[in-house]
Amino acid sequence: MDYDSLLELGDIVDIRYPAKGFIVIKPYGMMIIKNLYKLFEEQLEKDRHLPIHFPAIIPENNLRLEGEHFKGFEGEVFWITKAGLNELQDKYVLRPTSETAIYPMYSLWIKSWRDLPVKYYLSGTVWRYETKATRPLIRGREFLWIETHDAFPDQEHARTQINKDLEIANNVIKDRLKLDFLMFRRPDWDRFAGAVETYAIDTLLPDGKVLQIATTHYLGENFAKVFNIKYVDRDENEKYVHQTCFGIGINRILAALIYIHADEIGLRLPSSIAPYQAVIIPIGDVDEYVNKVYNVYANKYRIHIDNRDGITPGNKFYYWDKKGVPIKIIIGKIEKDNNTIEISTRSGKKERIDLGESLDKYLELNDKDLDYKMKIYDAKSIEDVGKILEIGGIARAPFYSIYKEGEEYYREIKEKFKAEIRGVRIDKDEKPEGQCIVSGRKAEHVVYIAKQY
Amino acid sequence: MDYDSLLELGDIVDIRYPAKGFIVIKPYGMMIIKNLYKLFEEQLEKDRHLPIHFPAIIPENNLRLEGEHFKGFEGEVFWITKAGLNELQDKYVLRPTSETAIYPMYSLWIKSWRDLPVKYYLSGTVWRYETKATRPLIRGREFLWIETHDAFPDQEHARTQINKDLEIANNVIKDRLKLDFLMFRRPDWDRFAGAVETYAIDTLLPDGKVLQIATTHYLGENFAKVFNIKYVDRDENEKYVHQTCFGIGINRILAALIYIHADEIGLRLPSSIAPYQAVIIPIGDVDEYVNKVYNVYANKYRIHIDNRDGITPGNKFYYWDKKGVPIKIIIGKIEKDNNTIEISTRSGKKERIDLGESLDKYLELNDKDLDYKMKIYDAKSIEDVGKILEIGGIARAPFYSIYKEGEEYYREIKEKFKAEIRGVRIDKDEKPEGQCIVSGRKAEHVVYIAKQY
Repeated sequence: MDYDSLLELGDIVDIRYPAKGFIVIKPYGMMIIKNLYKLFEEQLEKDRHLPIHFPAIIPENNLRLEGEHFKGFEGEVFWITKAGLNELQDKYVLRPTSETAIYPMYSLWIKSWRDLPVKYYLSGTVWRYETKATRPLIRGREFLWIETHDAFPDQEHARTQINKDLEIANNVIKDRLKLDFLMFRRPDWDRFAGAVETYAIDTLLPDGKVLQIATTHYLGENFAKVFNIKYVDRDENEKYVHQTCFGIGINRILAALIYIHADEIGLRLPSSIAPYQAVIIPIGDVDEYVNKVYNVYANKYRIHIDNRDGITPGNKFYYWDKKGVPIKIIIGKIEKDNNTIEISTRSGKKERIDLGESLDKYLELNDKDLDYKMKIYDAKSIEDVGKILEIGGIARAPFYSIYKEGEEYYREIKEKFKAEIRGVRIDKDEKPEGQCIVSGRKAEHVVYIAKQY
Repeated sequence: MDYDSLLELGDIVDIRYPAKGFIVIKPYGMMIIKNLYKLFEEQLEKDRHLPIHFPAIIPENNLRLEGEHFKGFEGEVFWITKAGLNELQDKYVLRPTSETAIYPMYSLWIKSWRDLPVKYYLSGTVWRYETKATRPLIRGREFLWIETHDAFPDQEHARTQINKDLEIANNVIKDRLKLDFLMFRRPDWDRFAGAVETYAIDTLLPDGKVLQIATTHYLGENFAKVFNIKYVDRDENEKYVHQTCFGIGINRILAALIYIHADEIGLRLPSSIAPYQAVIIPIGDVDEYVNKVYNVYANKYRIHIDNRDGITPGNKFYYWDKKGVPIKIIIGKIEKDNNTIEISTRSGKKERIDLGESLDKYLELNDKDLDYKMKIYDAKSIEDVGKILEIGGIARAPFYSIYKEGEEYYREIKEKFKAEIRGVRIDKDEKPEGQCIVSGRKAEHVVYIAKQY
């Protein structure tokens, strides 16, 4: 089913908010988002990150401090120039990301090796003035995310964190959300403004475009030097911290979940984030037994009773199928008389079980049905790349270099296919064979080529 | 202890963020805030509110629609006039509250009696350009809150909701947070801009000023008429909805918690929101047993192990006392050898218990110690009011009227004492005796007079 129909069917967003690129996220979407935040925050906290709140506005002077970073964001920030009836002397921007808000404070907080590591996360909103065509949850002018900002005594600790970030992403996105993805080191020309290296997680949407859903950046000492974040080590030497930051695109993960797992009926949701893991549909006069069933399961599962008037059980059944609820629990006279419930999974499996029996098995079944693999094909020539992109796949190909010297060959791909080189795998050491498909030079990397959002 | 010292001691905020009136909330403060959100959201969801997300920006045209509302907020909104390198044709404001963002969408969503009630809540940030002196968490230009926006078919249902709102506030603020407060109907001259009636919850801070921590407004059909929110009832008649909205000041509740419950040592936190309900302090080489203790309790309680190097157990003990942790668990060789733990409560009670024994009793003890009553005294004359305010209390007094016709007498109090008439109690029917303390007229109301933040 196409993306816009799914958003409509799931009652996920309303795009009629009267400001271009800004949308309302409706309750069913917001309940999923709250569950997504919970999953990621739990993992981050297990990895000893603590929550923190920073203002949504950044003084212009702060934003300007890191030159490359400012250049990267200057064209896409919203400016606050007036307050009440006064013109502001010192203007603010709405944060497009929080480095320049946070790091001046880190320079006040970090003094000694005893203060390290610092590992904080922000769950919140950022704003970017996107001028490309917007798409609900995928590209907008306001989006919900988590950003971590970590500081370490040296490069080694910082690089260890990058791996932990990717592990957290894997634990949630693959294991709990059942989304397939690739982990890349981005080419040099595709780094975050101000970063030494950028690592990213891409998933492939059914329309054949990849979507970046998370990134983690190794910032080295770049920002530490600009914002003067120094510490005294055990030997009394003053050193700059090494920093990492990790962005988790909550909106985009919601978009991917909805779009990728859907079938011809409607949404299908992993049980980890489904607003309701099971919906009770009563048939006939069984109110008392329905409440009993609810009370048996409500402590362990997210349960909803659909007791709407004037809608047939059949229509309720169909309604919750479209909304992607993992389990429907049908309760009629037979169930009441026998102290049982009838389970009906989203994939069509029906079973009558005793009241009180665990629902875990059925939720696992639901999640297992969601497993899938992205379409990735080997390209041996530039023509192959064209064919693979044509059928909505990702092309894997030998390429000269993801460092600066490879950029000119990337430009050819960009022009020919309006596609991107997403980078080299980092979860797997892939050795290139033969020549670069663009330049004919000896290939140094195996890269993945795809159209992107 | 004074408020600023407590914020410092608890490491709750940092006020050095380089934009006036904007502060950073540090992890210990943010962990409390996350727990506060959870408590309130659970109650709201039990009362069938659903979460929703609305943009942080409101188009100028929307804000202007309700005239009285716009007049009320015009002087205190931040204006976004530029995006990237472009001047915006249609300007935005940062939401100071969300009525004018939400209600245009309600007019699209609500069509029939079947769509009612609508009960949604937003957990998020709002911004107001405060020109009065700011105070961290109490009065700032950015604050965290929850706002509900409910629509009902008639006045009766709307008024029932007002009572539910107040019940939710009572359940959390009194029962879980152990804060004493008064519930008022505000005088006519102190209504929310655009509301028919405003109800509010005030607590008294140790410096003798009351702090408004929550409000619920009966909006009647005022906004429905402006934003055209109509429905067709069961008899096919078109009617306006009746609306209520409920604001819960999360920042201010944090401020009240910290300030009110503190003693000469430092913070004291209710167990419902303490970032850590218990902190384990190891003495000597007991790592393995400490982990065992942690694993026994971590599923049920929020536990932290203080295994910092180079800090004595005594200093750790003192450190966590200042931070207001309800229970310290001391673990040394004796405890290890006997499979016990030593409990030490914030109030000084010590007990050795078997590993695995419930901590509930000690948390309850902690919370019980926090109970207190605000200072409220009867005033029989205007002089009495002065004396009561002098000693940091709230004065209860007979007053002519909280309706418009009483405003001139309120002005006298305002000028004389820089104090406010907070309103009449709504949880209690108080009959006035004798004359109004200002006008000498027959008193129609018993009002409460206090200095306010």
